[in-house]
Amino acid sequence: MDAINIGVIGCGYWGPNLLRNFAENEAAQLRWICDLDEDRLASMSRRYPMAQTTSDYRLLVDDPAVDAVAVVTPVGTHFTIAKELLAGGKHVLLEKPLAATTAEAQELIDLAERNKLTLMVDHTFIYTGAVRKMKEIVSSGELGDLLYFDSVRINLGLFQSDINVLWDLAPHDLSIMDFLIDRQPQAISALGSSHIERGVENIAYLVMLFPDEFIAHFHFNWLAPVKIRRTMIAGSSKMILYDDIEPTEKVRVYDKGVTANRVGDREVDYQTLVSYRTGDVWAPKLDSTEALRYVVAEFLDSIREGRKPLTDGYAGLRVVRLLEAAQQSIKSGGSAVILADTAQVTPA
Amino acid sequence: MDAINIGVIGCGYWGPNLLRNFAENEAAQLRWICDLDEDRLASMSRRYPMAQTTSDYRLLVDDPAVDAVAVVTPVGTHFTIAKELLAGGKHVLLEKPLAATTAEAQELIDLAERNKLTLMVDHTFIYTGAVRKMKEIVSSGELGDLLYFDSVRINLGLFQSDINVLWDLAPHDLSIMDFLIDRQPQAISALGSSHIERGVENIAYLVMLFPDEFIAHFHFNWLAPVKIRRTMIAGSSKMILYDDIEPTEKVRVYDKGVTANRVGDREVDYQTLVSYRTGDVWAPKLDSTEALRYVVAEFLDSIREGRKPLTDGYAGLRVVRLLEAAQQSIKSGGSAVILADTAQVTPA
Amino acid sequence: MDAINIGVIGCGYWGPNLLRNFAENEAAQLRWICDLDEDRLASMSRRYPMAQTTSDYRLLVDDPAVDAVAVVTPVGTHFTIAKELLAGGKHVLLEKPLAATTAEAQELIDLAERNKLTLMVDHTFIYTGAVRKMKEIVSSGELGDLLYFDSVRINLGLFQSDINVLWDLAPHDLSIMDFLIDRQPQAISALGSSHIERGVENIAYLVMLFPDEFIAHFHFNWLAPVKIRRTMIAGSSKMILYDDIEPTEKVRVYDKGVTANRVGDREVDYQTLVSYRTGDVWAPKLDSTEALRYVVAEFLDSIREGRKPLTDGYAGLRVVRLLEAAQQSIKSGGSAVILADTAQVTPA
Amino acid sequence: MDAINIGVIGCGYWGPNLLRNFAENEAAQLRWICDLDEDRLASMSRRYPMAQTTSDYRLLVDDPAVDAVAVVTPVGTHFTIAKELLAGGKHVLLEKPLAATTAEAQELIDLAERNKLTLMVDHTFIYTGAVRKMKEIVSSGELGDLLYFDSVRINLGLFQSDINVLWDLAPHDLSIMDFLIDRQPQAISALGSSHIERGVENIAYLVMLFPDEFIAHFHFNWLAPVKIRRTMIAGSSKMILYDDIEPTEKVRVYDKGVTANRVGDREVDYQTLVSYRTGDVWAPKLDSTEALRYVVAEFLDSIREGRKPLTDGYAGLRVVRLLEAAQQSIKSGGSAVILADTAQVTPA
Repeated sequence: MDAINIGVIGCGYWGPNLLRNFAENEAAQLRWICDLDEDRLASMSRRYPMAQTTSDYRLLVDDPAVDAVAVVTPVGTHFTIAKELLAGGKHVLLEKPLAATTAEAQELIDLAERNKLTLMVDHTFIYTGAVRKMKEIVSSGELGDLLYFDSVRINLGLFQSDINVLWDLAPHDLSIMDFLIDRQPQAISALGSSHIERGVENIAYLVMLFPDEFIAHFHFNWLAPVKIRRTMIAGSSKMILYDDIEPTEKVRVYDKGVTANRVGDREVDYQTLVSYRTGDVWAPKLDSTEALRYVVAEFLDSIREGRKPLTDGYAGLRVVRLLEAAQQSIKSGGSAVILADTAQVTPA
Repeated sequence: MDAINIGVIGCGYWGPNLLRNFAENEAAQLRWICDLDEDRLASMSRRYPMAQTTSDYRLLVDDPAVDAVAVVTPVGTHFTIAKELLAGGKHVLLEKPLAATTAEAQELIDLAERNKLTLMVDHTFIYTGAVRKMKEIVSSGELGDLLYFDSVRINLGLFQSDINVLWDLAPHDLSIMDFLIDRQPQAISALGSSHIERGVENIAYLVMLFPDEFIAHFHFNWLAPVKIRRTMIAGSSKMILYDDIEPTEKVRVYDKGVTANRVGDREVDYQTLVSYRTGDVWAPKLDSTEALRYVVAEFLDSIREGRKPLTDGYAGLRVVRLLEAAQQSIKSGGSAVILADTAQVTPA
Repeated sequence: MDAINIGVIGCGYWGPNLLRNFAENEAAQLRWICDLDEDRLASMSRRYPMAQTTSDYRLLVDDPAVDAVAVVTPVGTHFTIAKELLAGGKHVLLEKPLAATTAEAQELIDLAERNKLTLMVDHTFIYTGAVRKMKEIVSSGELGDLLYFDSVRINLGLFQSDINVLWDLAPHDLSIMDFLIDRQPQAISALGSSHIERGVENIAYLVMLFPDEFIAHFHFNWLAPVKIRRTMIAGSSKMILYDDIEPTEKVRVYDKGVTANRVGDREVDYQTLVSYRTGDVWAPKLDSTEALRYVVAEFLDSIREGRKPLTDGYAGLRVVRLLEAAQQSIKSGGSAVILADTAQVTPA
Repeated sequence: MDAINIGVIGCGYWGPNLLRNFAENEAAQLRWICDLDEDRLASMSRRYPMAQTTSDYRLLVDDPAVDAVAVVTPVGTHFTIAKELLAGGKHVLLEKPLAATTAEAQELIDLAERNKLTLMVDHTFIYTGAVRKMKEIVSSGELGDLLYFDSVRINLGLFQSDINVLWDLAPHDLSIMDFLIDRQPQAISALGSSHIERGVENIAYLVMLFPDEFIAHFHFNWLAPVKIRRTMIAGSSKMILYDDIEPTEKVRVYDKGVTANRVGDREVDYQTLVSYRTGDVWAPKLDSTEALRYVVAEFLDSIREGRKPLTDGYAGLRVVRLLEAAQQSIKSGGSAVILADTAQVTPA
């Protein structure tokens, strides 16, 4: 079985990690490394002498020997580059978020489908042992009725020159929620504040409303005194606490819940009807394999098998849709943005 | 100097703590204990045999020997009881929140002023060593420009039959913010969800917008897997983390900040202009005296000295105003509620 | 069924807790409260008006209406008081440690057996939900072969005027180990240091050697910057971490172990033979009932049923024997003290 | 100024880190990389093409172009290799522990002095921001009289084929203590247990006695359910807690202490004389530069300046002496080993 010939565009913070994982996967053959910075190219070239280097990504589009390309560039450039690659017959793995607008995301999906090419988004967290274990737990139904999703991702973070805290951090948690919770929000409200650079929010709060009283909330912050990455997923029977800072016990399942037992139709004292339950706490063993190894394997497998990857274009589109709506809500001062019918965000 | 004769109405969860602190304060003399439950009254009577007991609070109103009364009853009854007490010439200490509406709160303030009586609200947290230390730090200006206030108060809490999580938990954090941050919000948005009892929110998120990009956010939750009580107060120079679960180091001051240095008016690459600073962390020693001891002392002192207590009627009114606006926003599905001119919420 | 008539001698730090639990147990009737301090007696009398008070414990010995007495006095007085009580036909519950020497402990055991009376020691921790749950786990055998017991109990503690840190803190952990681990040490070595008062150790380290490479170690410290109460019990298959500071998840069971697999008799590289296993972590729900409630119930039940209590005289004797040996080792500069045959420390 | 020509012997776990730091230091020029494993050599060669590779370290001894060599091999080989290097006129940096016996360590020191060569031991922790900050604090005297040093370094660690847990983990903490505490122990007692491999201890406890009631204790463990690396250094005025697992606040200074105030010579109640003090807690900002960068710089600087390095042969000798004595105590079942006059463990 021939190796899939790979190009990687962008060698900034994240690109070298993808390069390393492609280099270590036997099903892939690194062909091209592309970056605008000559020093980075030289450094990558020393490490991966089998690959050619260039500052012009069009060489990858035009090289018939290239099968697939990973694009690890600023989000503003995703659409243009990916469009050319797909038009040129290359499978594409895009760094998160997939694109800068839902219109762009939709166009990339359509183009990939027309050309029968794999379009995948690098929602890395979906491939971690923690998130996959939570998927197992949520899918088993043992949490009972899902009540809420609450996520905090804050630290004293590096300011980005081109995007705000929402576009920087939210793709992680929005993709995790999208993966774990099998439902789409009806409306989103968001507020933010720009303390450092006018118009570039460094703190943002999002709330999403769903049918049936399910609610999701997110706190993103580049200016916090401490680093917190913690998500609660509560059900009527059990609750999950996912603390990504913990070195090993990242996921804890609390056998806790509250039930309202209604007796007849008489008005009775409420406190006697609500029953609390607290039981064991369980921290399942997690696969600690580097998530990016699975990202790369899924990309290569989906190409070879001609199937949709786990984080396909629609997964990317759904996250971009939420980012877009949240951004719109922030700019309007927090007004709720109603999300349209979900038909468009899942494969037909 | 004669002791101040005290009555206490309500011996449920919190009342016995007030009773104990009045009993231990030499400037007070317990005269009456009032509750609707005969067993509780009997139990309190054994502990405080010097006090008379009754299930009819009007006996306290009518007893000329009573100087001051603490009202520790459900919020729905505060206005009626306090109004009669103030009309009867008694100084009044009301459990938080002061009243069920701003109109009620204002009427109590007016009545107390007309009758030259002390009206105080038991915002207990204001009297803790942690909050008083933070007040010192914030007042010193060493935090720099204040950026945000973020508070989380969640646990697997007891359902209240009469109020939602907002009216139960928010008075704590709203009173702390009101005390520490010398500014009033312009607008408030809130969303909540009722998982157990229709119309009784068990989870609520509040955001308040202030002039100058300062932002405040609150998360209240009765259905969380873990207990968290944590507040961040960030300034441009330093940041405070207040963790009330910590047994001793509840307050930490982080010498951390980010500064945007603008050079000329040219557009330059942003990352070179933002300078990060991280320095020492400092956990000041805190006074661990029971806060309620100070509450009781402040009530008695303000009566004796004929002065406003630290947490006067206006402090209570400001918190009720925020609760009322937050409740209104929740019921409207999260729409921003504009807060009127602040003239009315501070003494003339 | 008649209530058992109870006297309590000693109302210092711990005595009032026992008084409260006897008062709340319907099978007991408080008859006498004894203390040398008149103020304490007056205070206890107000709380428990059904009991007589005295500063002379001999009144309890002589009162034929008294069935059983709890002795909560300094350890130096245990023997004299308990001996008179047992001689007078009273069942006796002694605060830990049972006595100041093994000889005293043995004499009390013998006297109780001769007079067919209950002799019980208040090893409170044995009755906590955490220790009872650990007993279940250890007894089930799921830990595999037991490897070691390691306990740390340190804080900035109050200096005792009469005893050192060993006699103050070690009874807790020694009684826990004795209860959980079904074996007796062969030798004990201990070292300590006296920083504050010459000859009164404020820090002590103990090691006990057992057959079969099992080892137990203890660290006691009155002069530590932080409070730690943590025990590890390791087996070849699983390990327990017991952290008594944790508010709820005090006991964690780690599905971790290391196995040495020997293949043939050839010398092979060692690292290929040792297999590590790490699995889930589990924090069982614990009974959070106050342990002293069970202590009191066990005392009363064992009297009524004419059976040995869970923490009988021999349990007390075994702890005293270890304290005595540890003290001897400390005074000798750490020399190992060989512990004699265990026949004498368990019932015939 | 010419670069110092460097060889590195041993490319297992730690060697590559030294290689990387030499490669990044402009004062050094990598000349030789030596290892017995051809694959490792090939991999290192690709990364550092400027260096020659060999499996025979004698080529380095014989190459007149080599100035200095880092030896990162199992401790059993240190003496033979280092002796040849020093005899051949090379400066030597040895991985910890310096040698397998004090006799070997002394001979290396003597040889280096005779040949006027730098002999340095890689006690890496001494060069961390945390330990250097603690040195500052201890040296300032602000802790008051030093009372004890207590260190715990445990985890589920990899078994070593050639050494026990003592020789694997203790060099870290013994070198830290030696660096921070300006005094030498008089005696050492140690006990251990071998659960996996007969004669290879996987758990060890050490106690060292000093003049003046100062005491030091160490707990090393390869079979623990959790990872702990924590040291307490207590003084009469302040105490340090050093937690190396903490990502940022590794060092905390507690303004806590206990003082015994003696009044006259009368026997008075002890509790009135001991005064406790608890104040602020302070976590100083630490230099987070990789320690090995400083190790390499110190080695190069001391060569260039012809001076003793911070962690010279005597520092290595003192640690080996403690390891040797501890091992001897373990083998004797815990008997105290008296440490001879300290004259021999510091430079004349």
